[in-house]
Amino acid sequence: MGRVTARRRVVRIRDGRVSARPDTLAAEEPMELRVGGRPLTVTMRTPGHDFDLAAGFLVSEGVLHAADEVAGIRYCAGATADQGNTYNVVDVALSPGTAAPDASLERNFYTTSSCGLCGKASLDAVRTQAAWTVDSDALRIAPDVLTELPERLRAEQRVFDSTGGLHAAGLFSADGELLCLREDVGRHNAVDKVVGHALRTGLLPLRGCVLMVSGRASFELVQKAVMAGIPMLAAVSAPSSLAVDLAAESGLTLVGFLRGTSMNVYSGAERLEPVPVA
Amino acid sequence: MGRVTARRRVVRIRDGRVSARPDTLAAEEPMELRVGGRPLTVTMRTPGHDFDLAAGFLVSEGVLHAADEVAGIRYCAGATADQGNTYNVVDVALSPGTAAPDASLERNFYTTSSCGLCGKASLDAVRTQAAWTVDSDALRIAPDVLTELPERLRAEQRVFDSTGGLHAAGLFSADGELLCLREDVGRHNAVDKVVGHALRTGLLPLRGCVLMVSGRASFELVQKAVMAGIPMLAAVSAPSSLAVDLAAESGLTLVGFLRGTSMNVYSGAERLEPVPVA
Repeated sequence: MGRVTARRRVVRIRDGRVSARPDTLAAEEPMELRVGGRPLTVTMRTPGHDFDLAAGFLVSEGVLHAADEVAGIRYCAGATADQGNTYNVVDVALSPGTAAPDASLERNFYTTSSCGLCGKASLDAVRTQAAWTVDSDALRIAPDVLTELPERLRAEQRVFDSTGGLHAAGLFSADGELLCLREDVGRHNAVDKVVGHALRTGLLPLRGCVLMVSGRASFELVQKAVMAGIPMLAAVSAPSSLAVDLAAESGLTLVGFLRGTSMNVYSGAERLEPVPVA
Repeated sequence: MGRVTARRRVVRIRDGRVSARPDTLAAEEPMELRVGGRPLTVTMRTPGHDFDLAAGFLVSEGVLHAADEVAGIRYCAGATADQGNTYNVVDVALSPGTAAPDASLERNFYTTSSCGLCGKASLDAVRTQAAWTVDSDALRIAPDVLTELPERLRAEQRVFDSTGGLHAAGLFSADGELLCLREDVGRHNAVDKVVGHALRTGLLPLRGCVLMVSGRASFELVQKAVMAGIPMLAAVSAPSSLAVDLAAESGLTLVGFLRGTSMNVYSGAERLEPVPVA
């Protein structure tokens, strides 16, 4: 499809000197997700791995759990007046017996529960929806392996190299092998693409794996990890309070500020072995 | 409210040495936005300036344009079983004659148009919704003033200082004066809070102003600037292709990679005066 990057003219100012030249940017376009032909949501994303994005979004929302729940995924042609295909409308056909997303998902209300809207209600909603638990996952990983992941992620970020502007999510094994990397202008999309790839290749739940993200760790990213059965999330930057709360309640190991030989472990530190000497 | 940050225990690993201590994190909690008592959307945000966030979100979506369109904004008590107030449900009462948001907004479908879903349709949707144009804005700003903005924004980021993990949006005058700064775990929320503050203090449209953001420049951020009548958006990091396209079509000046004495100008470079010598 070749739409991952785009060229635009840019005026550069460097120390008081001006030059004009073409620049490579990360592409961003809207994608409409349909389930069984019914429009569900629109997200801005970097084109590419769109079927992974569609599948991963539905895993994150508790609709999909296994590859055989998907009958097919396709781009919808005929969405424009000239009957052309924009490659921006993706339809997921569910297998017979797989329940379609309910109306509350269409309106972003999955975090609302009967006990009122608060952080606790958001945590409860994830626990209710998750098909797997990660708290008993036997993953153990050496801190020395963990500190190498940011550089490995960065080294494989091809689109970032040309644009300087993309988020990345990488799935790693306990010995630091990169299993899957996806990039997107939206960090939640990058994670959905990784999770969707895992679903489509029959790898869910992702027991024993580490998910590494290039930015911060929000509640939403911890939620996506839990929904995919991933026991450890590592981020280059800071987590939020609710991300830490969800990680602690779910038994997920949450690592932040993973830089150089340093890291902060906000929950589940017992999965780091061998433990460094205090 | 004192809920902008939260304390959590963290295990720190530094060069093979382990220590445990409390750490300060950016708070994140869900907020439900209601309009006239009717639930519209739920967003994860950092508590604080919630009425600004509510108002700014509705400006971005084309519902609000002036302070007198708002009859009142309040936290809804009684949303929980014990009738307590979570301070996470905000209701905006519109003045008589102000049209409520339509159903398409509830389902995130504002970007879908009759001509099909593509980047062009997204640009068209913004043009249709915007109450003001920014292309004729007389703003002129010296590159030397612009290069000082990131440091000024950073210097005022109080929550970032304690947590290392928040996005910021700052509104500046043409001579570099900081008019309003807001922080949030979500960069779109930080911008909505700035715009909402401007609406509530009668400052829309924000002619002659510069909006500075701490991260990247996405389509959504350019959209919010255009909807608030802001003629210039400056970002520390990269823009996306669609952000540049919307800026060019709207006549907004878009600056990216604003770091040190350097910047990239992706559209509307004529607003930079005096022009440096090539």
